[in-house]
Amino acid sequence: MPDFLVEFDPDGRQAYISEQDNLLQAIAAAGIPLKASCGGKGTCNRCKTLVRAGKVKSAASGKLTEAELAAGYVLACQSTPESDLVLEVPEESRLSEHRVVLDGLPAGESNAILPEDEGLCKDGECDPLFKKIVVRVPGPTLEEAEDDLGRLFRVLRKQIGADHLRADLETMRSLPAVLRQSGWQVAVSLTEARGYKAVGVEEVEPDGLARKYYGLAIDIGTTTVVVHLVDLETGVSLGVKGTYNRQAIYGDDVISRIIHAVENKDGLRELQKAVLATINELTADLLREHDLKATDVRVAVCAGNTTMTHLFLGLDPAYIRLEPYTPAANSIPALRAHRVGLKIYPQAWVQCLPGIASYVGGDITAGVLVTGMAFSDQMTLFIDIGTNGEMVLGNKEWLISCACSAGPAFEGGGVRHGMRAMRGAIEHVRIAPGGMVVDFTTVDSAPPVGICGSGLIDCIAGLYSAGVIDRSGNILPDLKTPRVRESDEGMEFVLAWSHQSGRKVDITISEAEIKNLIRSKAAVFAGVNSMLKMVGLPLDAIERVIIAGGFGRYINIKDAVGIGLLPDLPLEKYTYIGNSSVKGAKMVLMFRRAREEVEEIARKMTYLELSAGNTFMEEFVSALFIPHTDLSLFPSLQPQ
Amino acid sequence: MPDFLVEFDPDGRQAYISEQDNLLQAIAAAGIPLKASCGGKGTCNRCKTLVRAGKVKSAASGKLTEAELAAGYVLACQSTPESDLVLEVPEESRLSEHRVVLDGLPAGESNAILPEDEGLCKDGECDPLFKKIVVRVPGPTLEEAEDDLGRLFRVLRKQIGADHLRADLETMRSLPAVLRQSGWQVAVSLTEARGYKAVGVEEVEPDGLARKYYGLAIDIGTTTVVVHLVDLETGVSLGVKGTYNRQAIYGDDVISRIIHAVENKDGLRELQKAVLATINELTADLLREHDLKATDVRVAVCAGNTTMTHLFLGLDPAYIRLEPYTPAANSIPALRAHRVGLKIYPQAWVQCLPGIASYVGGDITAGVLVTGMAFSDQMTLFIDIGTNGEMVLGNKEWLISCACSAGPAFEGGGVRHGMRAMRGAIEHVRIAPGGMVVDFTTVDSAPPVGICGSGLIDCIAGLYSAGVIDRSGNILPDLKTPRVRESDEGMEFVLAWSHQSGRKVDITISEAEIKNLIRSKAAVFAGVNSMLKMVGLPLDAIERVIIAGGFGRYINIKDAVGIGLLPDLPLEKYTYIGNSSVKGAKMVLMFRRAREEVEEIARKMTYLELSAGNTFMEEFVSALFIPHTDLSLFPSLQPQ
Repeated sequence: MPDFLVEFDPDGRQAYISEQDNLLQAIAAAGIPLKASCGGKGTCNRCKTLVRAGKVKSAASGKLTEAELAAGYVLACQSTPESDLVLEVPEESRLSEHRVVLDGLPAGESNAILPEDEGLCKDGECDPLFKKIVVRVPGPTLEEAEDDLGRLFRVLRKQIGADHLRADLETMRSLPAVLRQSGWQVAVSLTEARGYKAVGVEEVEPDGLARKYYGLAIDIGTTTVVVHLVDLETGVSLGVKGTYNRQAIYGDDVISRIIHAVENKDGLRELQKAVLATINELTADLLREHDLKATDVRVAVCAGNTTMTHLFLGLDPAYIRLEPYTPAANSIPALRAHRVGLKIYPQAWVQCLPGIASYVGGDITAGVLVTGMAFSDQMTLFIDIGTNGEMVLGNKEWLISCACSAGPAFEGGGVRHGMRAMRGAIEHVRIAPGGMVVDFTTVDSAPPVGICGSGLIDCIAGLYSAGVIDRSGNILPDLKTPRVRESDEGMEFVLAWSHQSGRKVDITISEAEIKNLIRSKAAVFAGVNSMLKMVGLPLDAIERVIIAGGFGRYINIKDAVGIGLLPDLPLEKYTYIGNSSVKGAKMVLMFRRAREEVEEIARKMTYLELSAGNTFMEEFVSALFIPHTDLSLFPSLQPQ
Repeated sequence: MPDFLVEFDPDGRQAYISEQDNLLQAIAAAGIPLKASCGGKGTCNRCKTLVRAGKVKSAASGKLTEAELAAGYVLACQSTPESDLVLEVPEESRLSEHRVVLDGLPAGESNAILPEDEGLCKDGECDPLFKKIVVRVPGPTLEEAEDDLGRLFRVLRKQIGADHLRADLETMRSLPAVLRQSGWQVAVSLTEARGYKAVGVEEVEPDGLARKYYGLAIDIGTTTVVVHLVDLETGVSLGVKGTYNRQAIYGDDVISRIIHAVENKDGLRELQKAVLATINELTADLLREHDLKATDVRVAVCAGNTTMTHLFLGLDPAYIRLEPYTPAANSIPALRAHRVGLKIYPQAWVQCLPGIASYVGGDITAGVLVTGMAFSDQMTLFIDIGTNGEMVLGNKEWLISCACSAGPAFEGGGVRHGMRAMRGAIEHVRIAPGGMVVDFTTVDSAPPVGICGSGLIDCIAGLYSAGVIDRSGNILPDLKTPRVRESDEGMEFVLAWSHQSGRKVDITISEAEIKNLIRSKAAVFAGVNSMLKMVGLPLDAIERVIIAGGFGRYINIKDAVGIGLLPDLPLEKYTYIGNSSVKGAKMVLMFRRAREEVEEIARKMTYLELSAGNTFMEEFVSALFIPHTDLSLFPSLQPQ
């Protein structure tokens, strides 16, 4: 089977693919970030690519307009090569850099440290997973000639209060000479994984420790990946970087990714390579900026949802998707970096935060850790809304969690003009009564090119309060505004006219999309209510609501309550904590208390499988109205 | 620097060495087992080699006779090449296969299983460091959809009562598919190292377990190495092999080896390679005989003295030899086979038995384990006499150990006609009064070629009781026997005439050698007495004496008491337990109780450094007579 050479213009990149590979694979191999929300199924229509030279065979060309076909566009996922090719991936088909919540604050505003309450390391306050400490070891005498390793351990036991001490072969090999050359004062590198292990010993230089070592805290999100490069002595994040997860080319949501892994021979390996490439590239950038080497990084802590953790480690994700939704592993033992494929010190430990179930993963455990709710008296609701809505309810007595498939709507998926919170995304919308006038703001105040999750919530709330849609999401007939019109796919509402738009087309939202969004918000609310029912508590028993995740950063809580996505509680009970996944990973990296707490959280948290009973379906159906069938649940929205 | 090609005739082997390498290095590289007791110092005169073609430069040729020089002999360790060479290593310069105590019984008689009291594995009775067990895992339901690994661990926890469970990445990766393909009944491979770790999971075949796995128990002796290939299910040693330690080329005793390691750039690496080659070759032979692959061996347990353990692992042995005699490490954590260099399954754990001090190593801990003395009421003396004499005294209340440099005399070193217990070694001697008639027996009843340790003890006892030597070891004047004569090196006694001998020379023992042997026996006895003094016990407080090691197998206890080597206790108190080092290793391989006990033994045993006080020197000087200055210590030897 011949290999064809595919060149990319103007990128200047190349890839070889064989006859039966599709162009998506060439684009992936060349490392060009392409939109492929549907994961190569030929349904999302986003991977349009221009064939500049050569011949391809395309299925599903009916999805493209005549003009596009004439210009030489194909859908990359539906096309295979018949000769060497020159391709151009147009700007609109590319994933562009978008706002990534690196921490508690939006990118650029980040001060790159743990929030105040976590603090930096003060003397003796932090106990990172990898640390270097200076010890003075008493020399042996004829009366007391214990072995060198025993002497070192004796001192360490006293100095760090560690009981279980081990050492690697290299440390044992160099110990006798280093101890004697250094006059019995040495710097010992220690990792904490199943007790302490000495993984290095070196002379102390006159001006203190010889070489400093670093750690990584990593959030592996379905959409974005964030890496903190952390100084293990101070806890300061020297640098923080985030970007889209390169797995995006295999689909927007975890289900498409699992399908790709299961249905393709090398699918799992491809997904694993993609996320490793993402993390390794972010890490390499951070190291370059700080003039450090890969081997200076001696430990990494990762938090991700269960599917992301599986794909990162190459674990079989097939049964996550199939009833009864069983992950391969929730609690992952510490693994060596070289086994995992992280390009840091090969023997470095990589620790993944434990998950609870197929749809409540280590990112949620991390979030619960950061909120402190597992050790608080206050009844707290933690919500992370992304492609899935994951929720945890509880306090120091108990924790209950659940997940509902919110669909990718709130991340801009499944909506024709939906997009992530990138430049030009409509993020806030106000609609005047009757729907004649629409005010909006966009990310970076750029000309509008689409609408992101927070914009969609505003939009539903605005359309409802402006009287454009009814409580079920139907667009009302006989409205006087030209913004309401009939299209091929039913009724739609124009948010921005083509003359305002950065895309030369009207930006619209259809009735079907509105109903889809109502289903998403209903799923989230029904999840919250199912948990409350299970423990027999009313809505107002919730004392705090903590919102996490990239999406939560930009939403208007009042509007989210208005459409019935979030419970109707006083606004002051709501807090936003940003990327709690990476924050939790960093806490685990730096503090032993956090490591103990995260274990306890994982043990303590029960999981409510919403598909296992009837409560959720009832709750869901009741929530398919704006804001809800039972208006008594939303007292603040009642006419006073 | 040119490389010269060295060919060996008749071996048909080749090696390349450079101008400044000596011929010993070529012989080592070609894998020809050469005698080099002194470790290449040019003092032992044993590495005579015939130069058949080519030119060498030799120092110290004065050590060879005129005839030898004329015939083309050189000392390999004192010669460097000046051209390509053809060498012949004569039979007498080679280490020949010799009797190795593989177990409690001499080779050939071995039934290759643990002694009766350890038994084979009966159902559920043994718990090897690596085992494969079949478990039935309940499948998940919507109500109970715990992760696959969690489900497996839940069952294992119940089935084997294990608390700390981990799994390696491969097991996590294959688990979901294997569980479902096998109908939720799988065979799990478990290693025990810091808790249990699952390191494999596979379908159960209709006729039971899929593939069987094996373990090694290894005794790393200074002189010989013994390997047991053990069926981990039954505890049966499928095969046992022993041979000389290839490090012998770098010297007979641990001190020469340490000096080689310290004084040569690659010395440590060479010694490590030599012992690994020895073990790997024995293992490969065993595997071949049983039609197994290296990867079928999933765990190894090693016991050796402290220096051997250091050299095996490449740990710096320099400070073992220098006051205050500090090893790099006594307790060695479990290590991966591929890190150590053992050619078995790369991820297999290798466990070394813990030592106590520089001269009381894992072989002695193993011996104490086998005797059961650490958990017995009986006051027991354990003695392992080889190059060093190592002794342990105690019972379940306490254990005290010490080591004295017995010198290599009892292993045939330092004695001109001394040899190890190989074919033709005089092993038992009777001398008639006056020294006229000598009766002896040899190993394999071959013509005598030298005298081994047990023969030397008989010889001293016989010479003394025959009135040939006085209590200090001086040969008495005016004896009427032609066997006493003057030589270049003083007085000597002829044990076997050249016409009887397999070497065409008289086999003799000199007065100087006799005195050397008396110093050796004095050191052992003084060690025992020093321990007794330290704890304030008389000799007859000892209720059992257990002799271990290859040397002990053949000695006549009565003669050993007669010359004052062993304490004068009723003969029924003496037991011989053979190679307790490999037996202990095998117990640790097969039984958890043994693993716990060996840890407790290592914790509990104190070490008496004989060079640290005056007691030992006083005891030693008092013991420099046959049997001792204080005859009251040897009541059975008094005229009644």
